[in-house]
Amino acid sequence: MRNIKLIIEYDGTKYAGWQIQNNAITVQEIVQNAIRLIIKENVKLIGSSRTDSGVHALGFVANFTTKSKIPSYKFKDAINSKLPEDIVILESEEVDSDFHSRYNCTGKTYVYTILNSNNPVAIGRNYSYHYKYSLDIELMKQASKYIVGKHDFKSFMKSGSSVKTTIRTITQLDIEKNDNFINIIISADGFLYNMVRIIVGTLIEVGRNKLKPEEVRQILECKNRTRAGMCVPPQGLCLKEVRY
Amino acid sequence: MRNIKLIIEYDGTKYAGWQIQNNAITVQEIVQNAIRLIIKENVKLIGSSRTDSGVHALGFVANFTTKSKIPSYKFKDAINSKLPEDIVILESEEVDSDFHSRYNCTGKTYVYTILNSNNPVAIGRNYSYHYKYSLDIELMKQASKYIVGKHDFKSFMKSGSSVKTTIRTITQLDIEKNDNFINIIISADGFLYNMVRIIVGTLIEVGRNKLKPEEVRQILECKNRTRAGMCVPPQGLCLKEVRY
Repeated sequence: MRNIKLIIEYDGTKYAGWQIQNNAITVQEIVQNAIRLIIKENVKLIGSSRTDSGVHALGFVANFTTKSKIPSYKFKDAINSKLPEDIVILESEEVDSDFHSRYNCTGKTYVYTILNSNNPVAIGRNYSYHYKYSLDIELMKQASKYIVGKHDFKSFMKSGSSVKTTIRTITQLDIEKNDNFINIIISADGFLYNMVRIIVGTLIEVGRNKLKPEEVRQILECKNRTRAGMCVPPQGLCLKEVRY
Repeated sequence: MRNIKLIIEYDGTKYAGWQIQNNAITVQEIVQNAIRLIIKENVKLIGSSRTDSGVHALGFVANFTTKSKIPSYKFKDAINSKLPEDIVILESEEVDSDFHSRYNCTGKTYVYTILNSNNPVAIGRNYSYHYKYSLDIELMKQASKYIVGKHDFKSFMKSGSSVKTTIRTITQLDIEKNDNFINIIISADGFLYNMVRIIVGTLIEVGRNKLKPEEVRQILECKNRTRAGMCVPPQGLCLKEVRY
């Protein structure tokens, strides 16, 4: 059996996330069905992450095994020919038989985009969270220093999620402003459920002067979800890169 | 009667352009109905341009007259409360009674965006034209010098359009490349029907080495639509600014 790795871009607006569900259309289902149409095998597509409903991806990774003899680079165009225009295969390549897009992942980068403006926008509305109160970027940057590093992120996980350990290492947390858009770029060895969106919600509390930057350290230490900020909406979130 | 000027951003993906039509939904109809809901008058909304189906706007201008006593800046939020999220009023202000958004216009700027890449994109697909063959930007820039200035643009107008004169003055034609996206920014005192899209289609012929830059001058001189390039698709086009 050959093992084929795909890099996938998708606009998550219309989808109930990646993972196949009953009674909802997901990206995994759409891509898996497209592959099955091409190679006439009952392929099972493995994804690197479970993105939530409405979340986007520029570099999602998935893999599947197949007996097909199609040259690996040709899967890209063949699968794209069966996909709707809001999902695009960017690359297809053959990888070692033991490659697993979820288990072998060593890190991911997400970008969260806030439109920080009195007015909403029409163009770009599906790719940003409109927050109209002025945010102090410098305070948010100060707070981000407490978040970077190896910590127990239990306060930043949706309560009730089941997971072996809530310890993660954040290797990057950059905040960039371009006109009215604030991009928050977060890299880690892994993320807990809703972790990026709760971190951003907490940074917004800091930017609004409702939390002091140093209080973010206390929130980490207390390991209590109720102390952190809100979980911001999904459409601002985009999975940019998955590393192996 | 008071005269109210609006600046409007819209995502044209779902609309049959600006101008009210039978049997199709247009931006003018949606905004005009929203205003009528707010002020309970049979307002007629005048637009600066007739954008085509699928074309976007970041700074469309419109105006209407009313007896309403609502403070002018409050129209913005009031109308937005009745609009779908793909149309946003950015500004509302009271202007002189003789202001007319179409007749008083002295210039406009459009941006046309080409995705010049082997792969299509999922995010941004509604705001760019995917052209997969490599384009030589330097040749396109050379050709653009023949287009800037006061010329008879009959070769760059949809044939059969009725208009008093086909002479226009292009004051800016800049070509910028950011990653795989090429933005073509065109300003003029006015535009003929499909003029921006035919200019871009002609520049693409130059970028592909199918036309020499200096042949663009001959195309202008012959005043014959069939000599110019194709009319590129609408979704790459955006009306950026209208000047008075």
